[in-house]
Amino acid sequence: MRVGFIGLGRMGRGMANRLLGGGHDLVVHDVVRAAGDEFVKAGATFADSVAALCAGRDVVVTMLVEDAQVIDIATRAGGLCASMAKGAIHLAMGTYGVGAIRALGEAHAKAGQVLVAAPVLGRPDLAASGQLGIVSGGPADAVTTVAPLLALMGRKTFHAGDLPESATAIKLANNMVLGCAMIAMGEGFSLIRRYGVAPQMFYDVMTEGLFASTAYKGYGKTMVDQTYDNVGSPITVGLKDAKLIQDAADLARVPMPMHNIYKDRLLGAVAHGDGDRDQAVLAREQARAAGLESS
Amino acid sequence: MRVGFIGLGRMGRGMANRLLGGGHDLVVHDVVRAAGDEFVKAGATFADSVAALCAGRDVVVTMLVEDAQVIDIATRAGGLCASMAKGAIHLAMGTYGVGAIRALGEAHAKAGQVLVAAPVLGRPDLAASGQLGIVSGGPADAVTTVAPLLALMGRKTFHAGDLPESATAIKLANNMVLGCAMIAMGEGFSLIRRYGVAPQMFYDVMTEGLFASTAYKGYGKTMVDQTYDNVGSPITVGLKDAKLIQDAADLARVPMPMHNIYKDRLLGAVAHGDGDRDQAVLAREQARAAGLESS
Amino acid sequence: MRVGFIGLGRMGRGMANRLLGGGHDLVVHDVVRAAGDEFVKAGATFADSVAALCAGRDVVVTMLVEDAQVIDIATRAGGLCASMAKGAIHLAMGTYGVGAIRALGEAHAKAGQVLVAAPVLGRPDLAASGQLGIVSGGPADAVTTVAPLLALMGRKTFHAGDLPESATAIKLANNMVLGCAMIAMGEGFSLIRRYGVAPQMFYDVMTEGLFASTAYKGYGKTMVDQTYDNVGSPITVGLKDAKLIQDAADLARVPMPMHNIYKDRLLGAVAHGDGDRDQAVLAREQARAAGLESS
Amino acid sequence: MRVGFIGLGRMGRGMANRLLGGGHDLVVHDVVRAAGDEFVKAGATFADSVAALCAGRDVVVTMLVEDAQVIDIATRAGGLCASMAKGAIHLAMGTYGVGAIRALGEAHAKAGQVLVAAPVLGRPDLAASGQLGIVSGGPADAVTTVAPLLALMGRKTFHAGDLPESATAIKLANNMVLGCAMIAMGEGFSLIRRYGVAPQMFYDVMTEGLFASTAYKGYGKTMVDQTYDNVGSPITVGLKDAKLIQDAADLARVPMPMHNIYKDRLLGAVAHGDGDRDQAVLAREQARAAGLESS
Repeated sequence: MRVGFIGLGRMGRGMANRLLGGGHDLVVHDVVRAAGDEFVKAGATFADSVAALCAGRDVVVTMLVEDAQVIDIATRAGGLCASMAKGAIHLAMGTYGVGAIRALGEAHAKAGQVLVAAPVLGRPDLAASGQLGIVSGGPADAVTTVAPLLALMGRKTFHAGDLPESATAIKLANNMVLGCAMIAMGEGFSLIRRYGVAPQMFYDVMTEGLFASTAYKGYGKTMVDQTYDNVGSPITVGLKDAKLIQDAADLARVPMPMHNIYKDRLLGAVAHGDGDRDQAVLAREQARAAGLESS
Repeated sequence: MRVGFIGLGRMGRGMANRLLGGGHDLVVHDVVRAAGDEFVKAGATFADSVAALCAGRDVVVTMLVEDAQVIDIATRAGGLCASMAKGAIHLAMGTYGVGAIRALGEAHAKAGQVLVAAPVLGRPDLAASGQLGIVSGGPADAVTTVAPLLALMGRKTFHAGDLPESATAIKLANNMVLGCAMIAMGEGFSLIRRYGVAPQMFYDVMTEGLFASTAYKGYGKTMVDQTYDNVGSPITVGLKDAKLIQDAADLARVPMPMHNIYKDRLLGAVAHGDGDRDQAVLAREQARAAGLESS
Repeated sequence: MRVGFIGLGRMGRGMANRLLGGGHDLVVHDVVRAAGDEFVKAGATFADSVAALCAGRDVVVTMLVEDAQVIDIATRAGGLCASMAKGAIHLAMGTYGVGAIRALGEAHAKAGQVLVAAPVLGRPDLAASGQLGIVSGGPADAVTTVAPLLALMGRKTFHAGDLPESATAIKLANNMVLGCAMIAMGEGFSLIRRYGVAPQMFYDVMTEGLFASTAYKGYGKTMVDQTYDNVGSPITVGLKDAKLIQDAADLARVPMPMHNIYKDRLLGAVAHGDGDRDQAVLAREQARAAGLESS
Repeated sequence: MRVGFIGLGRMGRGMANRLLGGGHDLVVHDVVRAAGDEFVKAGATFADSVAALCAGRDVVVTMLVEDAQVIDIATRAGGLCASMAKGAIHLAMGTYGVGAIRALGEAHAKAGQVLVAAPVLGRPDLAASGQLGIVSGGPADAVTTVAPLLALMGRKTFHAGDLPESATAIKLANNMVLGCAMIAMGEGFSLIRRYGVAPQMFYDVMTEGLFASTAYKGYGKTMVDQTYDNVGSPITVGLKDAKLIQDAADLARVPMPMHNIYKDRLLGAVAHGDGDRDQAVLAREQARAAGLESS
């Protein structure tokens, strides 16, 4: 397939490499020219502009961080909507808000193109090894078209529904469930500390019992060891996503009281100077509320 | 060891059977005489009173439901404190509140006896097969003494600390983390439904990813299938434990905002007539708040 | 009327004085003998025991602090139930929990006596001047009987209903609305401080506008001036009442999310060492959460 | 003073009339031409465009509903920034978000103009009679310049600070305190109903005691009478403002848990079909949560 790929950051690099390894005709673009060097060496083409990248592409993948970035790259003069062929597919794989996805979808529809949202679950190491979880949302035939690409980038694709934002909803809800798990663990650690229990012991009970899964083992261990400067996902990124979740809830008129608490604790962590630390530092934010740690 | 066992309900029966199978000299008691029949057939003795049961026992295990029950059986005339030998151990295996455990501990200390709290994690099937998780709290030597009994009843014992209430704290905190996971899933299900996603798909994303554990697979599945009348742990029992968690938090001065939401949703479920349904019905309570289900 | 009065603390003293001034035949009792001296000088009789006090009394007023105290004084050997005449009225004017009031009511009913709950609104200065607000709950004829007493002690009596606990519910709900007003002000003060606004200015906007009432003027001023050591109602008393509110909500199956936050902030204030300060210090607790004040 | 006024809706009409009555040279504009007729009759001029309105004006007042409207009218071609004289003042009197006010301020600064934010407290009747509360934010000299205008429109101006958004913060915080008061009352009404108390009685206790102010008397009465279709401020407007409050809190990193509950209840009210009813209907939303009313 003739594929364009925009956004060669930590995640995008691994994903684009998987596509290249799969034998696809790949043109890449990034605002940082040097980010494309390794791809050019490996046989891809670097396009100097979005417009140039779009020429002749069946599918353009974007892996950008912010809503504003993807909206801008799609709708500006010389952007995706103006440059992609009619019938071509924009495969948006970043985590964007429901509102942004809807706006993107409308813009592409006007331009005779198709949007498929396909946010990913996993970190750079999984991106590099093609082991991401992927959630797809969009028209069935377009999703079928991009399926071989998704198969190269992920271990499994979960198809959410015909609307691109249905994929967004799943991705955001999954993040929310994770955030709540972290806060709940944090409350638990505060409680047991007050009763003289070693955090490791509570961790063992959780993770050898009902909670023997990645979310609890990973973030829980960081809470026990307090290695918050070893950053997987920082508080600020959590806060960005938490706002997207909230916007999605507002649009859908869904009260989400637990999510509010997760978001409030993220705000508190930033206010207390922990914004760049790993999200597991939410346990410390909870400990502050309980007077177990001073700020 | 010469062991007494009080409380032959659904959990206690399985646990007492494990002790009997382990070759211990067992005397049992229950307010329902007939509950002891099978034990007598298997070689145990039935004691007609708590006082009779206590005579000559090294350890008395209690497996009762309510704080009030265990306090009463310990402190009343002819109760455990009055009847157990000096130096004997009361092994309290129900889920009691921190306040109750402290009161029990003081009462036994006055009477020259020792309290070990050892609440269990798991349901009747695990009790019957000796596969419970057990959390122990109490003086190290007493815990060592009862270790062979715990080894018969559980797959593993987690030792929380020297204070009996330290075990209570872990047990309650673990329940709280579970409750929060249920509410978070419920919020997630509400959100994705509003975006046209099938609940099963969100379930798959969670349980094949970060949340591949019993808590999410079990309660999540019930939420997807809405089989709330197939009751594992009913709302009312969840509410009883949620109050114990809250009392533990109050005593320790630990604000626990997520737990408050869990408890409020339990109250709401009772108010809406779902008190006897499985706790997974909390997803329906959340759906009510979002206007997705009428009461 | 032949009246007994138990509990000559800061509130009770003023209230009993009003009764004495109203020409009633008054017998008083307190665990502190000296607390009765001024009353004896003024013509009242001091009873050395509850039993002695009850003899020949039409009405016995109690003004005690804790649920446990009033339950104990009513139900113990030689207590109110055992000593009051059949048909006599126990006028319970402290702020007790719904559960305690129900238990009291049942105990008196068994003994052929009547319980009227009549918690008061106001502080010692209003008690001394007979300007308390009073909320009454109990059988209409009993409330009519005690009306002349209530008229001496308060500026107005609000009759809640035939059940004693109906008065309790109003009193507790009123406290809860007050607590929430304090937390809301606290959130407001945090917010405007972050935008460079002087607290006094926000106070003026509130109290010269929609919130020109005692609750906001009093506690708001303390928040502006941060005179938290000038204690009207301390955090610990707020916490005691907050627990009674929560118990009332639990019994009635009413989720009260705002109240939970009020209670959590009270817990936090205690955890941060502000337990003996005025409840207005809740604004500081909120400021801590926002990183505006370190602990 | 030569004044322009844009936005002749229910509030703006009354405010512009006050300016006209004060003898100022007034040019008005509204997207609805007919809205200007009464002003033209009374001696004002109607400008057909924003650009025309701006010509020669010392001050341009805007009274628009949405952030997007005021941003658009200021920054579009032919808008305020392009058309106002250097040194002229934009007096923005609607309730806008902190982010919008900051963006406006920057745009005007670039164009050599000055922004004063002056959101108002009060409804159309107070606007018509010049009895609004006004909160001003902006450079001291500019605020002094517009003071005579503010004096015509309001009973009092509270000066928040040199930053326009400081006024926004006070206005939003005041709304938040009001919203929390409504939810707290709602929780109170639910609680007392469960104990058999008539809502009017609880209302009397509140409003004759600590809460003898407009906020409680007004919304509380509507809750008692359940006259939710007599709409002062509808749920949807409350929700719009609640989002502005939340954005202000997010920008300032201030966790505001009570506000979150207010906002969630607003969402719930919309979800249950009460979006166009008076905000007092939040008491019904709370009653739904308590199972006291079915949806």
